[in-house]
Amino acid sequence: MAEITLDHARTIISAALAKGRELNLKPLTVVVLDAGGAMKAVEREDGAAPGRIEIAGGKAYGAVMLGMGGRAQMDRAEAQAYFIAAANGALGGRMVPVPGGVIVKDGDVTIGAVGISGDASDQDEAAALAGIEAAGLTAVP
Amino acid sequence: MAEITLDHARTIISAALAKGRELNLKPLTVVVLDAGGAMKAVEREDGAAPGRIEIAGGKAYGAVMLGMGGRAQMDRAEAQAYFIAAANGALGGRMVPVPGGVIVKDGDVTIGAVGISGDASDQDEAAALAGIEAAGLTAVP
Amino acid sequence: MAEITLDHARTIISAALAKGRELNLKPLTVVVLDAGGAMKAVEREDGAAPGRIEIAGGKAYGAVMLGMGGRAQMDRAEAQAYFIAAANGALGGRMVPVPGGVIVKDGDVTIGAVGISGDASDQDEAAALAGIEAAGLTAVP
Amino acid sequence: MAEITLDHARTIISAALAKGRELNLKPLTVVVLDAGGAMKAVEREDGAAPGRIEIAGGKAYGAVMLGMGGRAQMDRAEAQAYFIAAANGALGGRMVPVPGGVIVKDGDVTIGAVGISGDASDQDEAAALAGIEAAGLTAVP
Repeated sequence: MAEITLDHARTIISAALAKGRELNLKPLTVVVLDAGGAMKAVEREDGAAPGRIEIAGGKAYGAVMLGMGGRAQMDRAEAQAYFIAAANGALGGRMVPVPGGVIVKDGDVTIGAVGISGDASDQDEAAALAGIEAAGLTAVP
Repeated sequence: MAEITLDHARTIISAALAKGRELNLKPLTVVVLDAGGAMKAVEREDGAAPGRIEIAGGKAYGAVMLGMGGRAQMDRAEAQAYFIAAANGALGGRMVPVPGGVIVKDGDVTIGAVGISGDASDQDEAAALAGIEAAGLTAVP
Repeated sequence: MAEITLDHARTIISAALAKGRELNLKPLTVVVLDAGGAMKAVEREDGAAPGRIEIAGGKAYGAVMLGMGGRAQMDRAEAQAYFIAAANGALGGRMVPVPGGVIVKDGDVTIGAVGISGDASDQDEAAALAGIEAAGLTAVP
Repeated sequence: MAEITLDHARTIISAALAKGRELNLKPLTVVVLDAGGAMKAVEREDGAAPGRIEIAGGKAYGAVMLGMGGRAQMDRAEAQAYFIAAANGALGGRMVPVPGGVIVKDGDVTIGAVGISGDASDQDEAAALAGIEAAGLTAVP
């Protein structure tokens, strides 16, 4: 049953937002996708701008569709910018290849991805990692 | 302060899903949008098909963008199909004009909309109404 | 491990095409999607027109995204045309709501969908059912 | 009879995947297109991320639509980035101009293209070349 559940997603979001409050981050938006790239759960904190849905969602979408976390995508973009640009075009422009998009694994199996946006990318990623850890799952940034 | 909050959205989703379980409905997807049509919170129950995000989201999107609930849209579609078809085209094809898309008001002010998909449209709407009532807000189906 | 495998997909395609030859159908195109709507395997027989990829793929895509087989979608379209039209718009126009799009289940869990196009819709569906049966999986037309 | 057949496509895919296993590559996705850019056959190995369809497909699509293999496109992108960017825009953003997209010729006639994604681009290309060779056809990387 390697599939992300709504319980997983709620735990991830709740722990990620708690981490954001603990670190005193700006209002965060958290998007949890399943292994096919469809939303499982989303929360946007009060004060977070509306387009943060697309930014957080794009971080998670690129991660799950390429099987490559946002930090790995950023490294690849810095080494070979046109590959990431072209991949993004092929995926309809929906990727946001920066930290804060993190693959979620249950053991060896990818079951989804988390994308967070609102503060600096490194901080967004820290909140995502805290959320995934709280759910007892494995994060691949 | 007529604005939908994350607390509102969580209460709406939680009460709508509880209503779904009480009525023994199929797995539901609940999308809560703000007054600008951006997602505030989303939950998709285990077993709900991935495209239900777009269906539930489309019900809520049409409601908030037209200022007309899904039931009113359906009535209008039956009276004047080309108006709803044209409105949908103008809105990028994102509307789903059937019951289950419900406007959320705080007093006289529209603060968002709820869209639910998964069971028959009338049942989806019943769950949405239960959610909005639980949040102490006013529903316009 | 309720996930469609490449072995499943190969068996489905091979048996579906064999059924097509047995029934002397026109050249068929078979698209097998996973539970998230991404292609697992595709084959287009010699003589099948290029756009059959989109037709077969659209049958499978609508089935898996809505959790409703192509035959059920057709019935719903005949009862409430604008719902299916709007759902299709919300899913980017990628649905083809006719028989030949069949959900694939492993026990109770949806693991993907098969779409076939090339002959009459009823014949396309017969080939899809034969393929899914050969793989020891459950079909929902 | 300069046309790619389903037998060709099956041989290409089977030999390309065998090469991938021989070289111990990550899970591969193989897309075989005809001379018009339509899919002839596709296989995505278990464990390959869903968006690899678009990446592998984009490599093959650019190759057949421009008549220029992925390696040649990458060289051109490094010499004249705006040309490849503009060509990609004109082709709807569907190109992925890196190695692993290989034109397939029967004698002097282009009959299609193969795109592979999953490992490093050079490895993807090696698998594509092995597949095309196994089919007795000519590869233009």
